[in-house]
Amino acid sequence: MSGKGWQGNYFEDFTLGTRLDCPPERTLTAGDAAAYIALTGDRTAAFCGASQQAHPLVVFHTVFGQTVRPISLNARANLGYAGIRWGAPVFFGDTLSTTLEVVGLKENSNRQTGVVYVHTVGRNQRGEEVLSYWRWVMVKKRGDAPTASLEAPVVPELPGSVAPSALRLEAKPMPARATGARFFLEDYAPGERIDHYDGMTINPSDHMAFTRLFQNSAKVHFDAKLMEGRPLVYGGVVISHAYAMALNGLEARLGIVGINAGAHTSPIFAGDTLYAFTEVKEVYAPADSSVGALRLRLVGVKNVDPSSADFSLMVEDAKTPGKRVLNPAVVLDLDYWEAMPKRSGVEA
Amino acid sequence: MSGKGWQGNYFEDFTLGTRLDCPPERTLTAGDAAAYIALTGDRTAAFCGASQQAHPLVVFHTVFGQTVRPISLNARANLGYAGIRWGAPVFFGDTLSTTLEVVGLKENSNRQTGVVYVHTVGRNQRGEEVLSYWRWVMVKKRGDAPTASLEAPVVPELPGSVAPSALRLEAKPMPARATGARFFLEDYAPGERIDHYDGMTINPSDHMAFTRLFQNSAKVHFDAKLMEGRPLVYGGVVISHAYAMALNGLEARLGIVGINAGAHTSPIFAGDTLYAFTEVKEVYAPADSSVGALRLRLVGVKNVDPSSADFSLMVEDAKTPGKRVLNPAVVLDLDYWEAMPKRSGVEA
Amino acid sequence: MSGKGWQGNYFEDFTLGTRLDCPPERTLTAGDAAAYIALTGDRTAAFCGASQQAHPLVVFHTVFGQTVRPISLNARANLGYAGIRWGAPVFFGDTLSTTLEVVGLKENSNRQTGVVYVHTVGRNQRGEEVLSYWRWVMVKKRGDAPTASLEAPVVPELPGSVAPSALRLEAKPMPARATGARFFLEDYAPGERIDHYDGMTINPSDHMAFTRLFQNSAKVHFDAKLMEGRPLVYGGVVISHAYAMALNGLEARLGIVGINAGAHTSPIFAGDTLYAFTEVKEVYAPADSSVGALRLRLVGVKNVDPSSADFSLMVEDAKTPGKRVLNPAVVLDLDYWEAMPKRSGVEA
Repeated sequence: MSGKGWQGNYFEDFTLGTRLDCPPERTLTAGDAAAYIALTGDRTAAFCGASQQAHPLVVFHTVFGQTVRPISLNARANLGYAGIRWGAPVFFGDTLSTTLEVVGLKENSNRQTGVVYVHTVGRNQRGEEVLSYWRWVMVKKRGDAPTASLEAPVVPELPGSVAPSALRLEAKPMPARATGARFFLEDYAPGERIDHYDGMTINPSDHMAFTRLFQNSAKVHFDAKLMEGRPLVYGGVVISHAYAMALNGLEARLGIVGINAGAHTSPIFAGDTLYAFTEVKEVYAPADSSVGALRLRLVGVKNVDPSSADFSLMVEDAKTPGKRVLNPAVVLDLDYWEAMPKRSGVEA
Repeated sequence: MSGKGWQGNYFEDFTLGTRLDCPPERTLTAGDAAAYIALTGDRTAAFCGASQQAHPLVVFHTVFGQTVRPISLNARANLGYAGIRWGAPVFFGDTLSTTLEVVGLKENSNRQTGVVYVHTVGRNQRGEEVLSYWRWVMVKKRGDAPTASLEAPVVPELPGSVAPSALRLEAKPMPARATGARFFLEDYAPGERIDHYDGMTINPSDHMAFTRLFQNSAKVHFDAKLMEGRPLVYGGVVISHAYAMALNGLEARLGIVGINAGAHTSPIFAGDTLYAFTEVKEVYAPADSSVGALRLRLVGVKNVDPSSADFSLMVEDAKTPGKRVLNPAVVLDLDYWEAMPKRSGVEA
Repeated sequence: MSGKGWQGNYFEDFTLGTRLDCPPERTLTAGDAAAYIALTGDRTAAFCGASQQAHPLVVFHTVFGQTVRPISLNARANLGYAGIRWGAPVFFGDTLSTTLEVVGLKENSNRQTGVVYVHTVGRNQRGEEVLSYWRWVMVKKRGDAPTASLEAPVVPELPGSVAPSALRLEAKPMPARATGARFFLEDYAPGERIDHYDGMTINPSDHMAFTRLFQNSAKVHFDAKLMEGRPLVYGGVVISHAYAMALNGLEARLGIVGINAGAHTSPIFAGDTLYAFTEVKEVYAPADSSVGALRLRLVGVKNVDPSSADFSLMVEDAKTPGKRVLNPAVVLDLDYWEAMPKRSGVEA
């Protein structure tokens, strides 16, 4: 090992309050949009027609990818997200740049790792926020010597969810003939479940090309030698495929506008087949607007179709008879806000 | 199974004369063109230089993909095509939308399925036709009760071929130095055969990315669990690869302008290697134009190079000694019209 | 075998001084840039931000791909390159066309093959050179009869390297915050080694899509039947992945501007994992410019990380005890010039 090649930050390298740039900047284009559709099959009408607007998940993955080298080259685990909000819409030709701020540090008692809390902001070329969120990551330590944050950890207070009043719900409803929608904001009720009835098998090139498109260079996704033949699929691949499938039953949707929380509950590998279903958690219908929001739980499942009788969300724990646990086939549990027009605001 | 997720139309859901929109609209861009070249290797000069014109097969697959959810989510078999004609050329930035009209219905005597005949029209944002065709599909019934079209089927009269005078042959010839062409309209004669001498092995990501690019969401192409490990390759993948190979010997071509008939005679799966050859069927040389058309039979073959001595188009039937049948290695038999300039109309 | 399909030039078909066009022309777009990033993960700041400039390796592969049908359909081996120089920068929307000139011919004593030396020039739509180089290729003969170049071979004198004063070093330095650079021209010294610490496993679709993107139609990369299950990865895939990895430690780089020599020292196949390291050979720091050049040796290695203790560049010859030879895990040995800004010319 030698020379000027960057091997990533270790826990000791982070200082509270530090701001980090996340180069390089990335200009999103119609090329990225086409590649995203080829990789996911996403058919959300707002992002494949004449709008020239980048899909909000393209924005998410671009910003996330920019943060990999500063924050997560030596990550052991992505522990969580909070308060993800999309800001100004991004159009083809816009250039995104991202900054991180270290807002919390907690060394783990084993002295091998610590948790780094960062606030991430992605901006366009005019400096407008396009995405912001908190994330916490378990990062390896370089050595055994304890840091100040072993004895004096700083753990920020993070939002448990994004208040719907804080969402940017500026998208214009599209005509029903343009989306094929049969259902609108008023038609959804908390507690209902929507099966999506699609399955997508993830091939090696599919997930690697996706991850490279967003310049996410975390080694675990690409190096089959390092990973003993099983490179880990980037969690964002799962989010994007599950979201693409979730159009079925949510055809009027105008795009994801916030994420309250998300967990990658099991790893997925090339060869696995993804399915998804949605539970409606909350309906936000502001009186003065034609667009509201649905709070949705998007559940991604591997290798069993959750619309079949073979699937239960909760199952008996293999180790503790009588104990109910999340089905280990669940790979994604995402709590998010989707912009959804009112029926009254939509032309036929 | 529950909720608002669409599971597709069944035979009983179709009514004669019904018109169906096929959202979402799709704007074609330079991004789609690059993706198409990466997926097929197509080198047709008119669609990779400065023309900004979308490849006619990109138009075809886009329109076809838009019709999948209304017509073929519950299809058992694609039975045929007729009268496929390309209309106004499509340029980067044009937005395509598609409508279907049900023009025939015939319930099968087994009462499990029926044949739906649809006329499909794809249009650009100015409402100009870019593609139209008839197609008939075997669709599952929802139940056992007979429909009116069991006793009173309506089977439309469909064109056996597209008259060459009905083709739009407006493309301008390109200089020979821009195409590398050695042969022009006058050089081809009915009955001649052109071997293309290329082979293309289809990998799982290759065919799935292709099919997703066109937002074709038929489950059989993507879900390896459902398909017992062998997702079916979308027939359009075969058409596009065979057409890409067919440039060899047809370098002056200006683009496919019509399809008379097409059959996917055997399925193909990831791992198969495609080859192709062409037979010239007819030469259409209008007196008053520098561009005519060739009627061509494009034959796609799997896992044996049809230019080799090992291949015969017709072979002995495995079951009936003495009976000659199409070689089961043939996967595509396409009868189409190609715009081709006259030698006299082409600059060096 | 029959008809108008082109089977490539044989050694006898080349004549000294012949100039060959290499159609079709190709217009490079934002779509190609996105596809290139999805295929390589390249993060070089100058080619993913707002510049709208095509990556110089996209230019290289496009020009190289255009030459395949005239020169190398019947190639047995690519023997070498010399004097590769990039010219005018290429921007999205520019259209590239390529010509070859035969500058040397030498029939081999076995009379089965000969070496063809060609000078290649790629130009944009204004006729400006964007790339030029010499290449020599071993091409099959059509028959046994000796040619004039068996007795009277013509072997051109080729440059051993590109003089740094001949490089086009016009790129503007980017701010350090835009590249993340910690090192600049003055910081590099001949003899130092830079490990890049990334590994990339090559999947079948990855290399085939890459090769198709550049319309390189050499059969050996695509036809698994012909290649007995192991299509050969196009050497350009290795160059591009190794170059993408090499950003780590060279973050300020402004793009490859010349190649002195390159050897694909072992073949690679799908399933192999690529790694890379760099040796600095020379620093060119012109007094009157803020941009100089580094002469670098980029070494690509398969299936062993060259930053690990397990790897030695030179190893004992398996056949001749005591003899040291290049490690057969080395797949690429590239001697090139990289444009690199001086620290003094870079804003923070």
